[in-house]
Amino acid sequence: MKTAICAMLGIDFPLIAFTHCADVVVAVTNAGGLGVLGASGRSPAQLDDDLAWIDARVAGRPYGVDIVCPASDTSTTDAADPARMADSVPDGHRHFVNQFLKQHDLPFRHEQKDMNNPMRVDHAMGQQLLDVAFRHPIALVANALGVPPRTMIDTAHSSGVLVAGLVGTARHAVEHVAAGVDFVVAQGTEAGGHTGEISTLVLVPEVIEALRHTRHVPVIAAGGIVTGRQMAAAMALGAEGVWTGSVWLTTAEAETPAATVSRMLEASSTDAVRSRSRTGKPCRQLRSTWTDAWDADASPPPLPMPFQSLLSEPVLRRVDQLAESDSNALACATYFVGQGVGLLRSRRHVRDVINEMLEDFVDAIDGLTATLTD
Amino acid sequence: MKTAICAMLGIDFPLIAFTHCADVVVAVTNAGGLGVLGASGRSPAQLDDDLAWIDARVAGRPYGVDIVCPASDTSTTDAADPARMADSVPDGHRHFVNQFLKQHDLPFRHEQKDMNNPMRVDHAMGQQLLDVAFRHPIALVANALGVPPRTMIDTAHSSGVLVAGLVGTARHAVEHVAAGVDFVVAQGTEAGGHTGEISTLVLVPEVIEALRHTRHVPVIAAGGIVTGRQMAAAMALGAEGVWTGSVWLTTAEAETPAATVSRMLEASSTDAVRSRSRTGKPCRQLRSTWTDAWDADASPPPLPMPFQSLLSEPVLRRVDQLAESDSNALACATYFVGQGVGLLRSRRHVRDVINEMLEDFVDAIDGLTATLTD
Repeated sequence: MKTAICAMLGIDFPLIAFTHCADVVVAVTNAGGLGVLGASGRSPAQLDDDLAWIDARVAGRPYGVDIVCPASDTSTTDAADPARMADSVPDGHRHFVNQFLKQHDLPFRHEQKDMNNPMRVDHAMGQQLLDVAFRHPIALVANALGVPPRTMIDTAHSSGVLVAGLVGTARHAVEHVAAGVDFVVAQGTEAGGHTGEISTLVLVPEVIEALRHTRHVPVIAAGGIVTGRQMAAAMALGAEGVWTGSVWLTTAEAETPAATVSRMLEASSTDAVRSRSRTGKPCRQLRSTWTDAWDADASPPPLPMPFQSLLSEPVLRRVDQLAESDSNALACATYFVGQGVGLLRSRRHVRDVINEMLEDFVDAIDGLTATLTD
Repeated sequence: MKTAICAMLGIDFPLIAFTHCADVVVAVTNAGGLGVLGASGRSPAQLDDDLAWIDARVAGRPYGVDIVCPASDTSTTDAADPARMADSVPDGHRHFVNQFLKQHDLPFRHEQKDMNNPMRVDHAMGQQLLDVAFRHPIALVANALGVPPRTMIDTAHSSGVLVAGLVGTARHAVEHVAAGVDFVVAQGTEAGGHTGEISTLVLVPEVIEALRHTRHVPVIAAGGIVTGRQMAAAMALGAEGVWTGSVWLTTAEAETPAATVSRMLEASSTDAVRSRSRTGKPCRQLRSTWTDAWDADASPPPLPMPFQSLLSEPVLRRVDQLAESDSNALACATYFVGQGVGLLRSRRHVRDVINEMLEDFVDAIDGLTATLTD
């Protein structure tokens, strides 16, 4: 199976896999697709180790890195000063969290000191991770948050690395192309993680149409895609390939906690809710007592990014540790996942997922062709 | 182009068009698809006239009717007693509406007496409309609100009429099939009007999977579909055809107000918002100052169905009348439409829309086939 993006990236079929697990990157890349490692949450040293581990296993085959790197420095000031950030969290919000923990019989409280170690999502950290990534033979770099900064694009291009831009609206796609990205990932609302409101089925053709009047770049579809039939659907819309995420979370190679994998395999699409309860921005994740509490009419409005994380991360990291042995913690635990979770029913190896996707892709085309000849 | 649904309905290609305009029904049916008239908002006598008008123009070709007929009588009591309904509307909500009208320089107020004529969406009215419909040679009846009542299904089947069930989740699909529908319309969140949260791309395969263990019925895809490429995408997922709505609103044959058509042709997908501001249930429609006001943090929560309509309908009907000459009224006017509105760019005849859809459908399949052979 070949499209323009295959030649650009040096892959056998246009399937890109976003994952936080180095094992999944290796398995997808070695199967002929493109694994993309989500670097956020790693320190520069950890990223360096993980990329070296990947390099040793893919024999020069292409893979990519996804880094959250805001274009501007505006978020840096506050993020660099945890004390000032913590001061911005209203007491009522912390009280709400502690009431929640009590009501759900969770055996800990949210303390003031928990707010001193925010996850750093800022330009400086993004730049450090980028510097590490460019020391490895990556084929692609993607920015998960807004238009990639100028330095990311320039450094990538001078190193022969392609840059992908993830967009949720046609307007954003035009901005990304103007900034110099090599291809656009049009990500529909059904995707896991930070996501817009436009569905993949509408967004992909709307982005393609909007880019008719710009420099030509391929458009890749993302959001909800976990099967080969959906891959065929996305490419029927004119996408040159697909960007996937959720489907890898339940594979044997993934590091997703076992209890979470079980919940995902039982989930329907309605269990993947778009909620501001974790990061402050709408972010699709597994529904849990935490997301329900913040969606309730009686809840305070979630704080804007990055302040909501000062409330959510200490709680959600702790419940992840407790979830294997505490059913209340398991019910509170959440995980970024898209609506496609409703189509995942068994734990499989990456290789088997890919083989099935490619078979289903061909079946879908055969079925369409048959409607014309019957 | 043939699928199972074509043989069932006696149509040439699996394209079903939902519309409130009899002219569009006639044009789609005569072109070889299936026009379905949305009957809600019509009196039984008006419906009788419209169906007679259609009968005289389609020469026996198949068409359908969509009727909002709740299965139970629960809503009838209140709906039959406007005074009791009006008593349930909080003064604060009416005050909010009148503040809104003042702020937006709209030249009227919402009066107590405006609440005495609610649109009747109840079982008794649905039954009267059904009785009228069954006196005409309809091929299909659909229920837009929940599982079709037993009498609808029984009467339809004894008259050789097929019954379609519109569903927004896999669970609802199983319930509709158990109740006896002949096919299921899986309608994604991108659709106009009352809509769920699951996207078409995920919902269609999830419904097909859920129905593997029930009596076999075809699944039709709905939500966001306005082009032939999207039709191919839906059928790549395994749908036997498509159910469309928004694409007909801007056709030359439609009775959509001219000012609204202009706004739709300029709109992007982000202008089709899912809002409870009109009916009390989440309903996708053209974003307007009305939907914005009820989405604002300071707004009271919209009332549950059917009470919100007592606030919204008197205002929205009035602004529709004023919209041609009053820009504030035009900015307030809204209309049920899906995210596909972002792909509509010109006013076309129904026949041209269909021809283009069929050409694009074939192009999409050619493109997919090429990925396998290149």
